[in-house]
Amino acid sequence: MAVLYTSEAQRGEVFAAHFATELPDLPFHRDTAPDPAAIEYLVAWTAPPDVASRYPNLKLLFSVGAGVDQLDLAALPRKVDVVRMLEPGLAEQMQEYVTLAVLALHRDLPRYIHQRPSSLWQPGRNVPARERRVGIMGLGQLGKAVLQALTPFGFPLAGWSRSARQIPGVETFTDLSTFLSRTDILICLLPLTPDTAGILDAGLFSKLPPGAALVHAGRGRQLDHNALLEALASGQLSNAWLDVTEPEPLPAEHPFWNHQQIVLTPHIACQTRADDGARHVIAGIRAHKAGLPIPGLVDRTRGY
Amino acid sequence: MAVLYTSEAQRGEVFAAHFATELPDLPFHRDTAPDPAAIEYLVAWTAPPDVASRYPNLKLLFSVGAGVDQLDLAALPRKVDVVRMLEPGLAEQMQEYVTLAVLALHRDLPRYIHQRPSSLWQPGRNVPARERRVGIMGLGQLGKAVLQALTPFGFPLAGWSRSARQIPGVETFTDLSTFLSRTDILICLLPLTPDTAGILDAGLFSKLPPGAALVHAGRGRQLDHNALLEALASGQLSNAWLDVTEPEPLPAEHPFWNHQQIVLTPHIACQTRADDGARHVIAGIRAHKAGLPIPGLVDRTRGY
Repeated sequence: MAVLYTSEAQRGEVFAAHFATELPDLPFHRDTAPDPAAIEYLVAWTAPPDVASRYPNLKLLFSVGAGVDQLDLAALPRKVDVVRMLEPGLAEQMQEYVTLAVLALHRDLPRYIHQRPSSLWQPGRNVPARERRVGIMGLGQLGKAVLQALTPFGFPLAGWSRSARQIPGVETFTDLSTFLSRTDILICLLPLTPDTAGILDAGLFSKLPPGAALVHAGRGRQLDHNALLEALASGQLSNAWLDVTEPEPLPAEHPFWNHQQIVLTPHIACQTRADDGARHVIAGIRAHKAGLPIPGLVDRTRGY
Repeated sequence: MAVLYTSEAQRGEVFAAHFATELPDLPFHRDTAPDPAAIEYLVAWTAPPDVASRYPNLKLLFSVGAGVDQLDLAALPRKVDVVRMLEPGLAEQMQEYVTLAVLALHRDLPRYIHQRPSSLWQPGRNVPARERRVGIMGLGQLGKAVLQALTPFGFPLAGWSRSARQIPGVETFTDLSTFLSRTDILICLLPLTPDTAGILDAGLFSKLPPGAALVHAGRGRQLDHNALLEALASGQLSNAWLDVTEPEPLPAEHPFWNHQQIVLTPHIACQTRADDGARHVIAGIRAHKAGLPIPGLVDRTRGY
């Protein structure tokens, strides 16, 4: 029985130190395994296509990220369970990031940034939070954490998910059109699945109130770039705040780079912190050995 | 007995409508008073130097802004009381604005804004909120509201004021140097008085930890512009987020306009909303007539 870690080297040091202290009897290997048949736990961002034959006794595959869309789940044998990163730091970072983006759009920051090169001192009018309707697509752990962070500011809050949810103080929808029609600032936190790829398209933008804004911290492949550019040009969308694109990094000549209605950050909304990530993986291994529920276990039929 | 309103015309319409409904027996004049001796209440941003002789029966002077530093209090006779704007919308707007600025500095937004023209996709490292110490100068109504808004994010919070305060969850200081030495993001919300003019100077910046950031939403005259430019150039300060300058608007050729370490907004942190402002003034007049404490009454010896 052994663990193999194949992700970023600096973070690997932190994982090795935690494993040495907390699970000293479990061999912890980095990059390559002396005895592949001993590997029961793999910690990785992506897995090689032959992962099942290479590690015949693999039981758990831990993703080092909050998503598992980078893994080809269909290629993994059924007996391998997949665990996504779940650590308090991810929810905190997403709360910070989305609150920042929502407040910036609410308070017209893109306009003040873009009127600066012309030395234009021109105040806009502040809209009360109670008149700015915010809506989140995706009501998992991160979505709920973000709703909690936004609550004290007094925005009317709504959430959309495929299955009905009840969240105190939040209007929840399963009908996407109704949800969009009441949403002035739309936040996408959906996981990437075949159902959500390309979901942010012209049809979706047209159902928002004219002048709505988008915060996208889901996955790049969910956004139709051309549809966004057209919606911004027509005024159907006023601004977009993007942390993810397809591809990443965005090519140097891409029109998003110098677009006055787009704020762009280089996929920094959530970064797994090595210490917390190591603790999460160790807790998952302990739970697995004890036959207890594993935090972050992925439902492979849903893909998240 | 009458009211004279001498501020911005559009807001005056709203005031007139509120007075007509809520105090229909009190004559409400705009811009000029047919009988100056009848004026007991003046609603204004600034007052003429001869205000006392022009309106010999003036009892209350209401500022339409949260500050009263634009009024020459020394020139006003003792019998005239001064009332500053106090309405829930101001605290809400300051909570939004400062939370936005603190989260933006905490999450390196200025860097991502400024690396965009070079199409640079380069993520920085997210620092946990528990390692980012935030401190507020000025613990009045606005300062306390901002501390409340920042609390859920987990920043270690501190506050400085001349007189000792107790605020749950906040480390409070009366010694400025000790407060500055533990503050990574410094927020200035002080009222402008002779004691606070020029307070944000080279000596103050040198007492912060190297690389600290400044959020200034107090008054322009509190900031030494040259000292800020030098502190940014030396790296003693990493970034500044300014809503106020001296003068306003900032002249087109001013070095703040194109400075990569400065985010600038055109004095929009707090805007008095006409409806709420009218309600505050009407409540003040009612309290005055009834001999009750007047919300927002200024201590003229302190100047705020």
